[in-house]
Amino acid sequence: MRPVALLTDFGLADHYVGVLHAVLEREAPGVGRIDLGHQVPPGDVWTACFLLRCAWSSLPADAVVLAVVDPGVGGDRRPLAARIGGRWLVAPDNGLAAAIGVAAEVVTLDWQRMGLATPSATFHGRDLFAPAAARLARGDDPATLGDRVAPDGLEPCPIPEPDGNGGTWHAVVIHVDRFGNLITNLRAAAVLQTAVAWYGAPRPARRAGSYSEAAPGEVVLLEGSAGLLELAVNRGSAAALTGLSRGDDVDIASGT
Amino acid sequence: MRPVALLTDFGLADHYVGVLHAVLEREAPGVGRIDLGHQVPPGDVWTACFLLRCAWSSLPADAVVLAVVDPGVGGDRRPLAARIGGRWLVAPDNGLAAAIGVAAEVVTLDWQRMGLATPSATFHGRDLFAPAAARLARGDDPATLGDRVAPDGLEPCPIPEPDGNGGTWHAVVIHVDRFGNLITNLRAAAVLQTAVAWYGAPRPARRAGSYSEAAPGEVVLLEGSAGLLELAVNRGSAAALTGLSRGDDVDIASGT
Amino acid sequence: MRPVALLTDFGLADHYVGVLHAVLEREAPGVGRIDLGHQVPPGDVWTACFLLRCAWSSLPADAVVLAVVDPGVGGDRRPLAARIGGRWLVAPDNGLAAAIGVAAEVVTLDWQRMGLATPSATFHGRDLFAPAAARLARGDDPATLGDRVAPDGLEPCPIPEPDGNGGTWHAVVIHVDRFGNLITNLRAAAVLQTAVAWYGAPRPARRAGSYSEAAPGEVVLLEGSAGLLELAVNRGSAAALTGLSRGDDVDIASGT
Repeated sequence: MRPVALLTDFGLADHYVGVLHAVLEREAPGVGRIDLGHQVPPGDVWTACFLLRCAWSSLPADAVVLAVVDPGVGGDRRPLAARIGGRWLVAPDNGLAAAIGVAAEVVTLDWQRMGLATPSATFHGRDLFAPAAARLARGDDPATLGDRVAPDGLEPCPIPEPDGNGGTWHAVVIHVDRFGNLITNLRAAAVLQTAVAWYGAPRPARRAGSYSEAAPGEVVLLEGSAGLLELAVNRGSAAALTGLSRGDDVDIASGT
Repeated sequence: MRPVALLTDFGLADHYVGVLHAVLEREAPGVGRIDLGHQVPPGDVWTACFLLRCAWSSLPADAVVLAVVDPGVGGDRRPLAARIGGRWLVAPDNGLAAAIGVAAEVVTLDWQRMGLATPSATFHGRDLFAPAAARLARGDDPATLGDRVAPDGLEPCPIPEPDGNGGTWHAVVIHVDRFGNLITNLRAAAVLQTAVAWYGAPRPARRAGSYSEAAPGEVVLLEGSAGLLELAVNRGSAAALTGLSRGDDVDIASGT
Repeated sequence: MRPVALLTDFGLADHYVGVLHAVLEREAPGVGRIDLGHQVPPGDVWTACFLLRCAWSSLPADAVVLAVVDPGVGGDRRPLAARIGGRWLVAPDNGLAAAIGVAAEVVTLDWQRMGLATPSATFHGRDLFAPAAARLARGDDPATLGDRVAPDGLEPCPIPEPDGNGGTWHAVVIHVDRFGNLITNLRAAAVLQTAVAWYGAPRPARRAGSYSEAAPGEVVLLEGSAGLLELAVNRGSAAALTGLSRGDDVDIASGT
């Protein structure tokens, strides 16, 4: 059986996440279940795309990812299962699949084809997405979920790409993590090790190889664990120190 | 082995929830474990009843539910295991079982009968309830947990029933979820599709079939995923917009 | 397969915890996974030691504990696996192992020996600790993780021991839990049942056997579930009522 990883904006104060797990266990008893996170701010597809992208390559090669961040529930956005590499993503078509890459295979989710009860107006996670993920986990033929559709018409990911070239890049903070690290959209591989970052302070942040190379209270430019450049402070919060938040500009120059 | 679903007010900042999982895995290795939620406000039996009721029917048909919201721990409230349909609920007798329905079978939990060490004064979840749930998950005879008692003497659920009739109902907000939806105690099936809700604003909220039928910023009356009527705002928070919270009145008239 | 219990300061808003679970499931498919908690304040080794100590004895006897609270990531602190009793702790050498007891066997974690890719600068949980935990869970020989080192040179646990003797103890609040209980570092077994606690109020708190023995609003001295004395209030928060927090003094006298 394929393991299922869950990502939602349901939070943990209500029964919603527990119900997804319950449906998975009910429809695919014994399935391995992994929580990628449920604290995505309500309806924040951008954050969901970011987290999914960061976690993707660590997942088991045959994982099914159930991602329910779905501000358009009950509207006309398409519910999908998309195969990307050996993994399946089950999600609304709102940029989540495109955040990962090009799908090799896409089917729409059709509750009638799947023999499900009429979905509620508000909880397609329970009524449609989780049952579909359970079937893929069990190894059901994707054709039993709904119609095959072209993989090239999916909604784009809302996270912007950095602007610039090998010399100077206009990057953007795309995520602030629990530790206050300001993660940008620029891959570390795009610039030299001597790169510096201008973020509004009189002096730019210099590159460092790890937290421990930074002086106390110094904002440094670091390659984070997803390969993206981030502004970070050793044993401190770059977000608190700089006042920057998601969407703010960071200019990164390769230096000399 | 039966899967075990957990609901507590322990929060996630301490070791308490992890210890319940540890005891389950220790006493019933490999048991499926499902977190229904641990953010019930401390001692809030009402919320625990609500969440349990919403999740119940999604659970595997043979689930054991370990619900530890227990403001009376160390006092004289009875620890119980109650079979309701094919599922077992293991919980203090404080309204949780009654929130679900009529139990077919009830046993009190007796640590001596179970051969357990003397329970601590403060953590019966670890010392009594989780070991009992693990035994039921393994398929032990309920008679080995303690004495059978009459199912009709259980504590009532604290959530009020709506007051009224088919024409006009005095409902109450019984839960505010993460998205700010104001969930009432009135079942959608009790009123016509044309029903409107008076909640303190000059004009009532009209029924809508889904979020997407609402105008931006409009408070609508929606059938939520548990079959209850709720006040909701498309891509917004009805709680923030109306100022209503749990316990507030909503008058729902079937309309014409 | 041994089950793996996880304790981190990663919080639940990012992908970090999900990635640890993903790596465990990828490297040890079907492994039992238990979350001991992820809300340890960033870099707070003290709290991690406390939670680990409280949960330890409830774990399955062959558990592997993956504890990643690692303010020194990328610096020169040693990554370790330490066997204590029948359980393994996989963690940075910063006091976590010493919080539990004397290790019978310790190996450093060597990514080259393990055949892993070069670890990132910031996420050794994913790149080193979780792969090591997965190997121990699968039953791999600890010698394949790295070099054996002497168990007696580990970093000490930062939680202070109480100061005093059988008559009067100068204890310290070492943890405030979700319910506002003020847990001290003094074991209940160290004092008589008649002990009282001076904490800054005009009158001391008296010992009680359980919450229900306390009068409404009364601060009492209780034996908590880890065997430590705590200041507690029946259906209330001792932290809110007393204004005490971690590190504050509590003088406990055995009384007469």
